[in-house]
Amino acid sequence: MRVRATVGYDGTDFSGFQRQANAWTVQEALETALGRVSGEMVAVIAAGRTDAGVHASGQVIAFDTRWRHAIGSLERALNAVLPSSVAVRGLEPVEGSFHPRYDAISRAYRYSIYNDAVRCPVETRYSLHVAHRLDVEGMQGAANYLVGEHDLATFGRSPREGGATVRRVMQAAWTANGPRLTFQIEANAFLYRMVRSIVGTLIEVGRGAMSVDDFVAAFASRDRAKSGPSVLPHGLFLFGVTY
Amino acid sequence: MRVRATVGYDGTDFSGFQRQANAWTVQEALETALGRVSGEMVAVIAAGRTDAGVHASGQVIAFDTRWRHAIGSLERALNAVLPSSVAVRGLEPVEGSFHPRYDAISRAYRYSIYNDAVRCPVETRYSLHVAHRLDVEGMQGAANYLVGEHDLATFGRSPREGGATVRRVMQAAWTANGPRLTFQIEANAFLYRMVRSIVGTLIEVGRGAMSVDDFVAAFASRDRAKSGPSVLPHGLFLFGVTY
Repeated sequence: MRVRATVGYDGTDFSGFQRQANAWTVQEALETALGRVSGEMVAVIAAGRTDAGVHASGQVIAFDTRWRHAIGSLERALNAVLPSSVAVRGLEPVEGSFHPRYDAISRAYRYSIYNDAVRCPVETRYSLHVAHRLDVEGMQGAANYLVGEHDLATFGRSPREGGATVRRVMQAAWTANGPRLTFQIEANAFLYRMVRSIVGTLIEVGRGAMSVDDFVAAFASRDRAKSGPSVLPHGLFLFGVTY
Repeated sequence: MRVRATVGYDGTDFSGFQRQANAWTVQEALETALGRVSGEMVAVIAAGRTDAGVHASGQVIAFDTRWRHAIGSLERALNAVLPSSVAVRGLEPVEGSFHPRYDAISRAYRYSIYNDAVRCPVETRYSLHVAHRLDVEGMQGAANYLVGEHDLATFGRSPREGGATVRRVMQAAWTANGPRLTFQIEANAFLYRMVRSIVGTLIEVGRGAMSVDDFVAAFASRDRAKSGPSVLPHGLFLFGVTY
């Protein structure tokens, strides 16, 4: 049977989701745990191939297994053998045709910033420290232009060689809670490094190095060199996938 | 001059605040940084001596220095040499009589719980995972009895040998945001391990192992053996001190 599951992970010590030779990845952690629990060689497919250092609370995966016991006992067995930095939840049997990447309607990411003159040690692991005071209204003003169907080539390249760079963005919203700024972006799909490139460019707007007009011109240029520098991965979370 | 500062730290890798032989403490990190920056042997006093593994966003310290430059440059110099797990902010000169512990009117702590059947890897570092569904209303009903001036001997011993165990609690409030439960408690002062013992006992109420009446009887007994088991330190934050 094919099983769907939601996966959370702390990406700090992983070289991203996708299996690689000579690097510790989330996919390998999951496949190793499935192998130990089921005795099978199990291949895992995910909705999004997150980069090294990126976290997830709502990654979605699927795999095929001949597991004959209750699905709840598979979930408990997996969580018992997975490292503490990975956990699975909501395991359920699905149609054999279900594909977590091709069937997804949209993905949602969050990027967290701690905006204060002094860094905060308990925020360091999951948010980017920006000492320069950011103008959140300006960043939202620029982010509003992202919503809709656009060519986003300024902010990333297609995961497929020569692939299209048009994507549909449903939401691009900043929220502020004291020094904690969060950018939430939902799109049908994402280009490689897109969220980190967009956040880096919006920070240029927030600190006054780019105007909203500069942002709009960079966006329209479809020139990767016109984006701001990409931000570090540790503030980024894949938090949900919609089917 | 005497200088007051607010300190944040990730307590994970520290053996608590107070200096000890053969253990890495926040006090030693601060005094080492002050020594490097000022060239003096500087002793640091804190508002609260947090235990091993306990975090802080609003610890308050004071120290004496002959620093002759701007106070802002002392703050920047300290943050440049402190480990990433400690940061100081809001440095200001104060009266030579200021004492961060004796002059404090109250301290406020927060304890975080992640209450879901499955652990969440990105919550693990700063909150306790409790798989059993907790009754937050019941826990609040019991916590209400803590507010006021009471003998809290059930929940801890005095930091001084044979010292009094009466303390005045101003606030003891649970808030829930999905699976994230936070307990905020403010008191004029705290007994040794008091917050962790109270939270552990309230969890017994929350999972139905103790009734609110049982909690009230345990509280009234002033018997340390009647409390629930103390919770782990990693969910605890010292977040503010009032003067």
